[in-house]
Amino acid sequence: MQEKKNIEVCFSPVLFSNFRNPGAIAVIVDILRATSAIVTAFENGVDKIIPVGSLEEARASKEKGYMVAAERDGLVQDFADFGNSPFNFTRERVAGQQIVYSTTNGTQAIHVARDCAQVLIGAYLNFTSLKDWIVNQQRDVIFLCAGWKNKFNLEDTLFAGAMAENLITSGAFETICDSTKASMDLYGQASADLMKYLDKVAQRERLRRNKLDDVIEYCHTFDVTRVIPVLRNNHLEALDISPGEV
Amino acid sequence: MQEKKNIEVCFSPVLFSNFRNPGAIAVIVDILRATSAIVTAFENGVDKIIPVGSLEEARASKEKGYMVAAERDGLVQDFADFGNSPFNFTRERVAGQQIVYSTTNGTQAIHVARDCAQVLIGAYLNFTSLKDWIVNQQRDVIFLCAGWKNKFNLEDTLFAGAMAENLITSGAFETICDSTKASMDLYGQASADLMKYLDKVAQRERLRRNKLDDVIEYCHTFDVTRVIPVLRNNHLEALDISPGEV
Repeated sequence: MQEKKNIEVCFSPVLFSNFRNPGAIAVIVDILRATSAIVTAFENGVDKIIPVGSLEEARASKEKGYMVAAERDGLVQDFADFGNSPFNFTRERVAGQQIVYSTTNGTQAIHVARDCAQVLIGAYLNFTSLKDWIVNQQRDVIFLCAGWKNKFNLEDTLFAGAMAENLITSGAFETICDSTKASMDLYGQASADLMKYLDKVAQRERLRRNKLDDVIEYCHTFDVTRVIPVLRNNHLEALDISPGEV
Repeated sequence: MQEKKNIEVCFSPVLFSNFRNPGAIAVIVDILRATSAIVTAFENGVDKIIPVGSLEEARASKEKGYMVAAERDGLVQDFADFGNSPFNFTRERVAGQQIVYSTTNGTQAIHVARDCAQVLIGAYLNFTSLKDWIVNQQRDVIFLCAGWKNKFNLEDTLFAGAMAENLITSGAFETICDSTKASMDLYGQASADLMKYLDKVAQRERLRRNKLDDVIEYCHTFDVTRVIPVLRNNHLEALDISPGEV
């Protein structure tokens, strides 16, 4: 019998240096809204997304002629083509395009995880496809929650808990990590009525204040797509998940 | 009506710099075992405890004639008088003494919080006394979980959740912090049978491997004492909680 692989959950990009496991898959999680938006963009045919950290880099990319998504504290930047709402990334606007992307929390998370064996973008939108992929890799997995300004957040934790639950149910994974157990227990509490539980999430209130909370339900919809964005060199592209490769 | 004060929970000393609130009370939480041991030492009449970060400082203090508590990964250091078990700090050994103390996680947590308005030592052992004190201070409060090697741990989180629950019930506190809400939900799940829930905690297994898990039940016993250790300059001493001061 195959040895079980390990699941860990990291609650903030600042904590990631404590999770030393270069052979692991890192799954970046920023449910409200960066990773949900990125998955949507790939479902709608974007060619590449280039994550950058600073707004200065994003602005410079715009001047070089790139399409740019740039958001801080939920708000689209004046020089940018897109903010952080998945609804911005329609097929008409993104198909075949290369987009430079900078967000409050999400792109920092991608950056700190870049040395892992695989860096994948996770969302409810590609849940089952991502879960199936991970099960087939026979590697440890670390869910890296983007959080909020380096702090813990609930919505990313719930996703990690849901995924951990499913991976353990597959029989190929186990965990000795307190963060993972906490995530699973929180998801267990929330899952009976996820939308009701999300009422308590601080980010929902932040989005509501800016009239940006129209995305909550969409960002918590399972399996809208099979696409899995993966980091290659310095950009994200769609993983080839044809049966041959799995 | 008095404005409600805010509760936050910080899951790791590494994250504490993101909680900027110098007017707040910081409560250091390292249930297994540093803060439980420190509270026990004060209940048993220790005069002062001097937290130091490194083992080198601890060893140098021993050479200067101090009594020294020094532990890493659960194990007492060879030059030290004490490890990290609350059962070490008996009245016979500690009454009237000054003890230099260095642990894997706890003393680092005290260090990063040192600029807060008050730095208090929290444990189940002084739960109600600490809760009463905090309610009377009319300040925000941050529970700083020592965690395990800069990572999240469950046992400190459960304590923070129990305390947050009680503070909100007092009517004087509220929270908008996802960490606090998660802590409360986890404690809500665990509290029906705390000892059973603790079976899943990684630190329990670490202690068990070293035959040090005899302290689990004691460290989760409410209200053994009213004493509250407080940081003054560079040492911990017992807070004067006489009714006049409250």
